[in-house]
Amino acid sequence: MASPPTLLPVGRVVSSIRKPRDAPHQGRDVSAEVSIVVKPEYREALVGIEECRRLVILCWLHLADRKRLMVHPRGNPDNPLRGVFSTRSPLRPNPLAVYTAELLEVEGLTLRVRGVDAVDGTPVVDIRPHVPRLDD
Amino acid sequence: MASPPTLLPVGRVVSSIRKPRDAPHQGRDVSAEVSIVVKPEYREALVGIEECRRLVILCWLHLADRKRLMVHPRGNPDNPLRGVFSTRSPLRPNPLAVYTAELLEVEGLTLRVRGVDAVDGTPVVDIRPHVPRLDD
Repeated sequence: MASPPTLLPVGRVVSSIRKPRDAPHQGRDVSAEVSIVVKPEYREALVGIEECRRLVILCWLHLADRKRLMVHPRGNPDNPLRGVFSTRSPLRPNPLAVYTAELLEVEGLTLRVRGVDAVDGTPVVDIRPHVPRLDD
Repeated sequence: MASPPTLLPVGRVVSSIRKPRDAPHQGRDVSAEVSIVVKPEYREALVGIEECRRLVILCWLHLADRKRLMVHPRGNPDNPLRGVFSTRSPLRPNPLAVYTAELLEVEGLTLRVRGVDAVDGTPVVDIRPHVPRLDD
């Protein structure tokens, strides 16, 4: 492989969640609504999005510690250390979050969605339709 | 946000699929087995992985064209152009693949899995346990 891949943030999350500690532990438990604001240069990539009822949204958890290779599951020191690849901890070498979200509304470059618990300002790196056959 | 996020490949796919055109259209249709070979520096991150029956594996599709914002779905020119965010095309600004795979065997740094249709040499950027409540 050539140079290490660099992600292009295509948008960002606008949310009332300001700090990671305020975020619920898993996106699927949330009913809070957030907005995904797409950058103008990716406008064309949104054509047809309004036909999608559910989306898979990939975010880069920019506040996560990327150096940790082992964690106490659920942050509880009583739980024995495990490798991050055998946990769902956001602390990992590449802190990517994969959310399944309900698309509520599209207005220009803004998607209103339910099911993304990322903090305000989190970079969005991909948006794709949820396909039950592939994603469930 | 500061500098654009750079992915750290944590391993690679060892597969008999050599070219993207040989890959089945969607990972979930495949029964082929591949190996995920993790880099030695991420050994600790694998602790506990053998307890996972199913994994979510994130790959960077390094051969995909990142410039395309619109595509003819399924590569058929008769299909009207759509924005890549409303399709599952591998051509997208950040060509990340999310596979749900069955973990068959762990031997040292090598995971034998079923359900990943990436070509040989594809960088792996994350491995995590599949959790039905979160992923389905």
